[in-house]
Amino acid sequence: MPELSPRLTGLNGGGSDGWEVFYRARALVARGVEVTELTIGEHDERTDPAILDAMHAAARDGHTGYATVPGTDTLRDAIAARVAERTGVPTTRANVLVTPGGQSALFAAHVACCPPGAPALLVEPHYATYPGTIRGAGAVPRPVPTRPEDGFLPDRAALMRAAPGAASLLLNTPNNPTGAVYGRQTLEAVAEVAEAHDLWLISDEVYDSQVWEGAHLSPRALPGMAARTLVVGSMSKSHAMTGSRIGWIVAPEAVIGHLIDLATVTTYGVPGFIQDAACFALAEGVAREGRVAEPFGRRRARVLEALEGHAAVRAVPPQGAMYVMLDVRATGLDGAAFAGALLDAHRIAVMPGESFGPSAAGHVRVALTVPDERLVAAVETLAAFADSLARAPRHAARS
Amino acid sequence: MPELSPRLTGLNGGGSDGWEVFYRARALVARGVEVTELTIGEHDERTDPAILDAMHAAARDGHTGYATVPGTDTLRDAIAARVAERTGVPTTRANVLVTPGGQSALFAAHVACCPPGAPALLVEPHYATYPGTIRGAGAVPRPVPTRPEDGFLPDRAALMRAAPGAASLLLNTPNNPTGAVYGRQTLEAVAEVAEAHDLWLISDEVYDSQVWEGAHLSPRALPGMAARTLVVGSMSKSHAMTGSRIGWIVAPEAVIGHLIDLATVTTYGVPGFIQDAACFALAEGVAREGRVAEPFGRRRARVLEALEGHAAVRAVPPQGAMYVMLDVRATGLDGAAFAGALLDAHRIAVMPGESFGPSAAGHVRVALTVPDERLVAAVETLAAFADSLARAPRHAARS
Repeated sequence: MPELSPRLTGLNGGGSDGWEVFYRARALVARGVEVTELTIGEHDERTDPAILDAMHAAARDGHTGYATVPGTDTLRDAIAARVAERTGVPTTRANVLVTPGGQSALFAAHVACCPPGAPALLVEPHYATYPGTIRGAGAVPRPVPTRPEDGFLPDRAALMRAAPGAASLLLNTPNNPTGAVYGRQTLEAVAEVAEAHDLWLISDEVYDSQVWEGAHLSPRALPGMAARTLVVGSMSKSHAMTGSRIGWIVAPEAVIGHLIDLATVTTYGVPGFIQDAACFALAEGVAREGRVAEPFGRRRARVLEALEGHAAVRAVPPQGAMYVMLDVRATGLDGAAFAGALLDAHRIAVMPGESFGPSAAGHVRVALTVPDERLVAAVETLAAFADSLARAPRHAARS
Repeated sequence: MPELSPRLTGLNGGGSDGWEVFYRARALVARGVEVTELTIGEHDERTDPAILDAMHAAARDGHTGYATVPGTDTLRDAIAARVAERTGVPTTRANVLVTPGGQSALFAAHVACCPPGAPALLVEPHYATYPGTIRGAGAVPRPVPTRPEDGFLPDRAALMRAAPGAASLLLNTPNNPTGAVYGRQTLEAVAEVAEAHDLWLISDEVYDSQVWEGAHLSPRALPGMAARTLVVGSMSKSHAMTGSRIGWIVAPEAVIGHLIDLATVTTYGVPGFIQDAACFALAEGVAREGRVAEPFGRRRARVLEALEGHAAVRAVPPQGAMYVMLDVRATGLDGAAFAGALLDAHRIAVMPGESFGPSAAGHVRVALTVPDERLVAAVETLAAFADSLARAPRHAARS
């Protein structure tokens, strides 16, 4: 066998990926063991049958041939209207590329912005695929650490230190895994750094419909930023359409023109019937998105309430998204060890904070993706388990 | 605006892409002008409603969440069985990655096989996206010319001359645009070159169900070749599912392992309900594929018959696929000028051979994708038009 490209074999960066607990939980489930899975960001509700019926009607109506690569005019118009309405930034179909999901959009954005070998900034902790996405695009991930005591918000000084020589800065607000929603002050610092170092901003806003405190602000809406910002969006989280693989990039028209060329050689477009289903779903506006988001806001409140009075677990209260980060450092364990012990003792699976970068060490991420009562019971068990570890002599906790 | 990556802005290689006739035809249609479009490889039949109903049933049954990135076990098994049965090469699900279409598979294969900056061979004339696909993957296209008088088959000497330093060789049999089906002798020469220069073979076999003379032979089936071959397949041509965007790569297990990592950061998998629809379609085996292919074989015969007795147009009889290449050099025009003149004079749109590389200069490609009578009438008009040009004084033909 000839040698594979080092770009392919080096995708994972060589380290452990911190997903052992996730795979162990999946293996237990496959063996018939009941596990409360609070690991990944997948809605417990499936895609609305009304959306699926719209998809089927479009397919039966003959929309089964090659769709135009940039996306249908109707869907590009609908996405542009959604973005313009929420951000106030003038946006037309010429600013929109439809992609087969948000992940594909993240990849294309980095191919566009990063010359081969260029450093690409990402705020850490970060969504699990970010470093691999940057490596896959031929760039070099350069993480910008944050601190739990700052609510995991990036600060100006850390950004300025990291920026020299970088091509792009990847943001995610509302944030997975931390639930942070970046406010105006944070984004103004980001904009200042981007201008000072002539960076592209790649702004992952797939959780923009899930905000529990404050309001979502897109960095593209800040003065001058529309010319250097690529916004990544998706129907996955806002419309419970994870499996339909449909998302978008919103960017300057000249960038979209080149991204269409890239899509021609990387994906050749998105199924027309799925685009029609997305149009159907978007036509119902914020009402539908609110219905999809509501359970996560409700469960967030229930989880924060359930944690009151537990000394060994401190929530970092999320302002958005569908997760809660818990600081378990008082147990004496790191996030991975705590998650492993919790799975062994109580068949509850959560993600170690370390999976998302060293800034989240000593934390675990709880996905709010099971029904309320089961979630609350699991969080109470988790908290009592943490308390018991914190009370036990250190060597016992590690045994 | 910061600078975009040269990898993005250089995707098109700077030259004309030869698609002017296609876009002019589309513009005429948009203005309400009736045009016989014989340009792109899209079936006149839509996707079978039975396949669409299977897709809808899977979606309504709840297969709407994230599918596993490599593809469902059921579909990977079905693809492995199809490949093993047709080629005789032992193939299991571990050799299969499901992709969102054949284009995505072509891109991923080149990312896998080509280190950044490496030359990647492609046989010319070639499918329109190939050079951009290679550039998008960060490699450098190095075309291997063929000759009409050799039936556009690559010869050993030309391959050997092109191979030094290259990482991969992209083949397409049955071939678009030429209709060539590579026989054992040609493929043995390819294998010899691949072994001599330690090349990966990337074998695009999306037309494997459309063979009119001889038989499809996969280079992966030649001795020793399975270890260095990545086969690209798709449901588009074989099952008239172009708009469903579903395809695959078949490769050594170690390669698939890395390609799954790449898929995680470039696509995050393929809709589960589309995978279920593909399973439904594949379960019917060659019977369904034969029904989809049959019109193209029939029309090919009709077109060859219609051309008899026309001196100025010589068909290069295709052994496979859904196109006929016509040599129009006797008209004194190149392919682009002939196609432009034909569109102006008779509202018939065909692709200039030059769109597929200089080896097809002086040819046009006719897609067999309109109903028989309309196709035959168009080809008769085309041939008579060519004859009239050939009889006319050269300067008149160019006016």
